[in-house]
Amino acid sequence: MAGTHSLDALIQALRRLPGVGMKSAQRMAFHLLQHDREGARLLVRALADAADHVQHCERCHTFTENTICDTCLDERRDASKLCVVETPADQSALERTAAYKGLYFVLMGKLSPLDGIGPKDIGLQKLFERATDGVVQEVILATNFTAEGEATAHVIGEALKSRGLQVTRLARGVPAGSELEYVDLGTIAHALADRR
Amino acid sequence: MAGTHSLDALIQALRRLPGVGMKSAQRMAFHLLQHDREGARLLVRALADAADHVQHCERCHTFTENTICDTCLDERRDASKLCVVETPADQSALERTAAYKGLYFVLMGKLSPLDGIGPKDIGLQKLFERATDGVVQEVILATNFTAEGEATAHVIGEALKSRGLQVTRLARGVPAGSELEYVDLGTIAHALADRR
Repeated sequence: MAGTHSLDALIQALRRLPGVGMKSAQRMAFHLLQHDREGARLLVRALADAADHVQHCERCHTFTENTICDTCLDERRDASKLCVVETPADQSALERTAAYKGLYFVLMGKLSPLDGIGPKDIGLQKLFERATDGVVQEVILATNFTAEGEATAHVIGEALKSRGLQVTRLARGVPAGSELEYVDLGTIAHALADRR
Repeated sequence: MAGTHSLDALIQALRRLPGVGMKSAQRMAFHLLQHDREGARLLVRALADAADHVQHCERCHTFTENTICDTCLDERRDASKLCVVETPADQSALERTAAYKGLYFVLMGKLSPLDGIGPKDIGLQKLFERATDGVVQEVILATNFTAEGEATAHVIGEALKSRGLQVTRLARGVPAGSELEYVDLGTIAHALADRR
């Protein structure tokens, strides 16, 4: 911004955040230093704290401060159901629906051969071990409905079916509250095929 | 994201950044914790460092780690010219042109009555003292060409002219490399009026 070493360092550090370019980083640094020093200190503490304490749950891979996360430890949950999601944010979205009471496995990514992300990187072996613990009856594939998410679901689905598990996928269809006129054709075609 | 305390705290802290909503904050937190712990630690150090050391230059108000910034201390600069800008980023843009060798005064904001930002908040009294030090001959107003930037320039200009200083404003006109067909009419009108 003005050739100040610690300011330049801050702008460079902010640029490592996803979706933050030079202009945004400058604006963020300016905002924090000029208008929100308290916010800067808060972010320092929160970042240091999270970087030190947040790890992966040994059972489901999601972020947790403990060895096993609260969800996996919750005995009221239905351990016969295992829902596979890409990220903790996806898990959080499912939790907010309050429509699912089973357990989760969080891939922390998706298969993406073009980016060099293969089965090992998203812990598929660990998922297969987790899913064949003898308690899990049904695996619900809730990866995103993107090309990569679908491919990931396909690979996992085939592998788990061959191990004798019941595998289901979130239903594709018309989103609640939408008008058909504005829904893309692929979605309508799927909704038609999966009609009930 | 998943009900983890330090993760939630991190997401809330990231949301204080300008232009960052819930989704972006989640994505940033996920990215830092899953893919870039080193980036997280770097940001912690840079933020703590900047928050501790960056202050305002006593002469021009820009960000600096010292009492007086390097630009103000640089004796090769033309002290008879004082350029008034809104932010350190604007100052930086002017510096990159290498077309200006005078000094600066950084308002660290702009007059914005609707947001309750008055003359005191952007240090106009200090600017008036700075500009009437007997050395400054010309004040160049380089606030943005927005409604608020123009109003700020007008207020400063009137006040300084009444103190007997020469006051100029950056030229308005057609940006370099642009085709007239695509330039907005106000800009063309200004370019016409200021033709040379």
